[in-house]
Amino acid sequence: MVASKAFSSGASSTCTTSSYLQTEWSVISLACDGADGNDKGVPVTDARTLESYAAGSWFRSDAEGQPLADATTGETVARISSSGLDLAAMVRHAKQVGGPAVRALTFHQRALLMKDVATYLSRPEIKDELYDVSFRTGATTKDSWIDIDGGIGTVFSYSGKARRELPNSTIAPDGPPEPLGKGGTFLGQHVFTSRPGVAVEINAFNFPVWGMLEKLAPAFIAGLPSIVKPASQTAYLTELTVRRIIESGILPEGTLQLLCGSAGTLLDELTVQDSVAFTGSAHTAGVLRRHESVVSGGVSLGVEADSLNCSVLGADVTADDPEFDLFVRGVVAEMTVKAGQKCTAIRRVIVPEPMVQPVIDAISARLDRITVGDPRDEATRMGPLSSLAQRDEVRKAIEALRSSADVVYGDPNAALGDARGAFLGPVLLRTHPGSTQMHDVEPFGPVASVVGYGSTSDAVELAARGKGSLVGSVVTHDPDVARELVQGLAPWHGRILVLDRDDAKESTGHGSPLPVLVHGGPGRAGGGEELGGVRGILHHLQRTAIQGSPDMLTAITGRWTTGSARDATGMHPFRKSLAQLRIGDTIATASRTVTLTDIDDFAAKTGDTFYAHTDPEAAARNPIFGGIVAHGYLVVSLAAGLFVEPSPGPVLANFGIDNLRFLTPVRAGDSISVLLTAKQITPRQSADYGEVRWDCLVSNQDGEPVATYDVLTLVAKE
Amino acid sequence: MVASKAFSSGASSTCTTSSYLQTEWSVISLACDGADGNDKGVPVTDARTLESYAAGSWFRSDAEGQPLADATTGETVARISSSGLDLAAMVRHAKQVGGPAVRALTFHQRALLMKDVATYLSRPEIKDELYDVSFRTGATTKDSWIDIDGGIGTVFSYSGKARRELPNSTIAPDGPPEPLGKGGTFLGQHVFTSRPGVAVEINAFNFPVWGMLEKLAPAFIAGLPSIVKPASQTAYLTELTVRRIIESGILPEGTLQLLCGSAGTLLDELTVQDSVAFTGSAHTAGVLRRHESVVSGGVSLGVEADSLNCSVLGADVTADDPEFDLFVRGVVAEMTVKAGQKCTAIRRVIVPEPMVQPVIDAISARLDRITVGDPRDEATRMGPLSSLAQRDEVRKAIEALRSSADVVYGDPNAALGDARGAFLGPVLLRTHPGSTQMHDVEPFGPVASVVGYGSTSDAVELAARGKGSLVGSVVTHDPDVARELVQGLAPWHGRILVLDRDDAKESTGHGSPLPVLVHGGPGRAGGGEELGGVRGILHHLQRTAIQGSPDMLTAITGRWTTGSARDATGMHPFRKSLAQLRIGDTIATASRTVTLTDIDDFAAKTGDTFYAHTDPEAAARNPIFGGIVAHGYLVVSLAAGLFVEPSPGPVLANFGIDNLRFLTPVRAGDSISVLLTAKQITPRQSADYGEVRWDCLVSNQDGEPVATYDVLTLVAKE
Repeated sequence: MVASKAFSSGASSTCTTSSYLQTEWSVISLACDGADGNDKGVPVTDARTLESYAAGSWFRSDAEGQPLADATTGETVARISSSGLDLAAMVRHAKQVGGPAVRALTFHQRALLMKDVATYLSRPEIKDELYDVSFRTGATTKDSWIDIDGGIGTVFSYSGKARRELPNSTIAPDGPPEPLGKGGTFLGQHVFTSRPGVAVEINAFNFPVWGMLEKLAPAFIAGLPSIVKPASQTAYLTELTVRRIIESGILPEGTLQLLCGSAGTLLDELTVQDSVAFTGSAHTAGVLRRHESVVSGGVSLGVEADSLNCSVLGADVTADDPEFDLFVRGVVAEMTVKAGQKCTAIRRVIVPEPMVQPVIDAISARLDRITVGDPRDEATRMGPLSSLAQRDEVRKAIEALRSSADVVYGDPNAALGDARGAFLGPVLLRTHPGSTQMHDVEPFGPVASVVGYGSTSDAVELAARGKGSLVGSVVTHDPDVARELVQGLAPWHGRILVLDRDDAKESTGHGSPLPVLVHGGPGRAGGGEELGGVRGILHHLQRTAIQGSPDMLTAITGRWTTGSARDATGMHPFRKSLAQLRIGDTIATASRTVTLTDIDDFAAKTGDTFYAHTDPEAAARNPIFGGIVAHGYLVVSLAAGLFVEPSPGPVLANFGIDNLRFLTPVRAGDSISVLLTAKQITPRQSADYGEVRWDCLVSNQDGEPVATYDVLTLVAKE
Repeated sequence: MVASKAFSSGASSTCTTSSYLQTEWSVISLACDGADGNDKGVPVTDARTLESYAAGSWFRSDAEGQPLADATTGETVARISSSGLDLAAMVRHAKQVGGPAVRALTFHQRALLMKDVATYLSRPEIKDELYDVSFRTGATTKDSWIDIDGGIGTVFSYSGKARRELPNSTIAPDGPPEPLGKGGTFLGQHVFTSRPGVAVEINAFNFPVWGMLEKLAPAFIAGLPSIVKPASQTAYLTELTVRRIIESGILPEGTLQLLCGSAGTLLDELTVQDSVAFTGSAHTAGVLRRHESVVSGGVSLGVEADSLNCSVLGADVTADDPEFDLFVRGVVAEMTVKAGQKCTAIRRVIVPEPMVQPVIDAISARLDRITVGDPRDEATRMGPLSSLAQRDEVRKAIEALRSSADVVYGDPNAALGDARGAFLGPVLLRTHPGSTQMHDVEPFGPVASVVGYGSTSDAVELAARGKGSLVGSVVTHDPDVARELVQGLAPWHGRILVLDRDDAKESTGHGSPLPVLVHGGPGRAGGGEELGGVRGILHHLQRTAIQGSPDMLTAITGRWTTGSARDATGMHPFRKSLAQLRIGDTIATASRTVTLTDIDDFAAKTGDTFYAHTDPEAAARNPIFGGIVAHGYLVVSLAAGLFVEPSPGPVLANFGIDNLRFLTPVRAGDSISVLLTAKQITPRQSADYGEVRWDCLVSNQDGEPVATYDVLTLVAKE
């Protein structure tokens, strides 16, 4: 192993002081070489050294890598080293080969490739292989489901969201045009574009598949090539997953590279358009934040770091309420799933003072049912920690917590299962009043601390002592309690679960980040944001305000902008297939006079006899209308009568209307006409039709706008 | 002056190596005390020491402060020192007094207070006073207009945007609910809430009024108390503005504090929920980025720093085109307005190689008309730089540029005007091929460099060498040239102006940040974002994903969520004023059968004879409908007939519809009914009515949803 500059390999599972989600990006790694697995009397097997996928080929280091131990048996699963790897060449390859390849695709095309990746990884033979290797990390089948199926599901979710919510283009408008002058010749339009850089994704050991995929999918759809750097301890599972993706041939070369081992001087190679997404300890996050590339090199850094997540039991809940049981189940699940090695696990159990003992009793009773053992054994409910070193860290954290708390369940030092395995049973602590330890020390294992509170505002204050968390949960059936707790907790959290009898059945639980919801939290949790549906893609894009004439904005964004040229010279645009239709194609209709009879008939036929349409005296007293006016619904119906082309053609259906605003009342005797203009064309990649958004402007005989809206249609490609 | 820790007062206008937007947050300030104004033979007058507004009262330091010189005459305008100021008390006051006061108000209430501030500052007697003092900074009347009226206009803009685009509440939903389970009992909703922290706003010397107001308004509306820290050189104008605001009594105590002088240990006092918005040099930004409070204290930092903005002349433009003249005017304006001391000024003039000499000639001819002199003189087109030290910096930058460029206009060392004033005439350079200096050295004065390019992609590559800028402009009348340039430049810029004959008349110009557009840029420009309409407010809020049952989400957000309880027991909700109406109030209508006659009549009356409504054979072949269906417009019209309450009441008008989607076709013989539910209530603060958004669900006889949309109405308060 070669240590270079501040960053080097080896500290992952052995020596960092922070216990959470370590990667080997650590300044203190020099003292830690090869400590894992060798000092417990386990013979080092002749395990292969993991490979990196770099600049188009697989690279294996000649160096004797650090051994990675099976969490249960202590056997060496693989070795890891990046010694000899040309990191600069990886960055160049990403920028010169991968970047141009992915940016040549539209958002939808990228999203479909991601769907293909997810489909490929879903093949039974591949999934079986991943699940099999996942046991070696200490994960039970259920734990692996979160990692493997959860990861694949995240990619599917991103593929769908991107195709539904982004244009089939390489540029995404952000918000509506902003008028910047009264004459309408000068407007602003915010757009998102892809950065000509590389996304470096540094993951934690606890979710070697999900962690890689949840960062890869949004970055790829955003048009960025990725360099994936897994934490050493479980890198063999990430390597296998990346190997299968590369073998599939689905992704353009250069868009996915893998770095197994030390990241060395990788950050030194990064510049303005590059980004680093880091999941790991606050300590390492601090090292990254101080790196010159971040401080003055313009590299953007997103961090998901330590988090002392809380679960709060509402003051309304009694031991007989279903919420009491839901609360206890939630705490026990978060303590034991993945042996508590989740960045989102509940560390702090905050309950009304009188409920402290009942909650401890109920949690203890449920913990009694947790069988700890070999994750391959179906009877096992909780496997070992990921490594012996990790167990040492957790035991140290428990010791720190005990200075102001009592262990009320479990024995952190009990011997369990195979002596070579990193087993640790669940431990529950009851914190002494006023303790600060439970709000500052994160035991990254099956450990939680219980504390009592007085008023609801006390509960908020206790939660806030965590200094910012990824997720909190609130268990209550009282909407007022929920509102007060959530409004107090929200500024301190990236996600809050409100759990009660109504949503429990469908709830995905406290600990599950979901692809459609943001993941990340303020303060101690790192201040970064990932996921959140399309938000997770937009994080990777540059937002720019473009100012110009409507015509220029139309040309640049590919979306017709109010005020730009309309082409009404050709055939009716409803007669044009997607292959023929162009942005700006317009039907300028004849005009039609709206009569009092039209209004009366419409009221009679539809039953909409609102007085402004039917009662001259009452209508005259209406402060907005001051007399009989046509129904808004009549106006849009007559407008359709003016612009619709009746005979069969490529327009298949009108499936909706957006942003309808009535601007000027239409009175009997007024004439209306319509300009309907192709505004945005979104061909579907995998269907023989697409969506066309039409700008609809209804005007009266004086040229005043009567109504504006977008008409949404499905149109055949040919 | 007391220097404390790394940060101290005094470097503002004297000693920093970076020339741009200096503040006194500098590590090299100890050597600079009192250098300004004293070494040029100008007698130090008995000027008063500026006061800070801290913890509810005005504080004047006992220390002999640093003198601040009039840019034209060298006279001491004021002295500045924060020695003795209790910074911790300011932070406490903001959090304990100001924060709770502003967070007790809704977004709309805060926005109206900002409108009151802007109105107050618009009083002629106050504006006259500000303009008068502004001369002392070297600003001409036109320069001051950008600063003073531009600042007041920004506050007005924020007030309006917030009231139009944010709810009249303390919590803002972000996007629609995300279904998280098939049963509809578990959903996610992103929300924005106010942080219980303080916004520290560190401004640059060049816009003492605008810089303060453009940061204050979004922060205040976001619910944050502000501590404003102006750059020393022009702090007397900021102090006067803050003094007038405080005197007005409009803002709640503790929401606006002013720190004149060194910021000392202010950053040490900040914690997780606090933020720092910094405008200044990249050097100082680096110091802030390395501060412990930022690295590991969870303080969020936004930076707007150095920027070598470019203007690119399109390859299509000839010397006879109007765009040629627009380009030249733009460059000259940006060189000379504020004597080029704008973070957005054009430093790099990028033109097709054959146009280099014509452009230089044309710029030179226009620069000949620029009269440099006392800003109080109406004939003056350009005043002095802000200080002699600033002029020294600019001269040094010009020397650096000259190592790979020739001065083709002006003489940086020429003596101009009053010898005590910081006068410097415009300087234009022609860069040698391959020079890197022009892309790295920012002369913060009336200086620009011209470089030639070959292809359009060369132009993009040259622009990118700036490593990220606040703004670029593209002058072309060719949409293809515009598209290629803008798509290439966008990832490197926060704003891009596309200028041509069509928008020139209304264009606000290259150098003007606008409140509705984002301000900030990637890389060298700092990577931060300010302004951008509501985006500038949301930057200050915490985004949190809330998961829960529909009822809980409704209770927490104050917006009715699909699936939550409807109350259809009372009177028709259209009969309820805002005072009576509650979220969830519902009308459940009778059902109505849609007949073929209805469809035929509707087609005949409206003229909408689309074949799917009128031609059974053709309709049968439609892949979506497979037979005659009712018009979508008929369905929504009949729905209105079902839910409308005809007689006069508090509902004044239906002003629009949002998000209409047709989900199931309605065929002859189907029956439809409607559930219309009060979804969001937005009373206007300054009117006797408000807006009510109704959730409208039209279903058929089988309970299938036929159409969903939001109906928007104006409803009287009483």
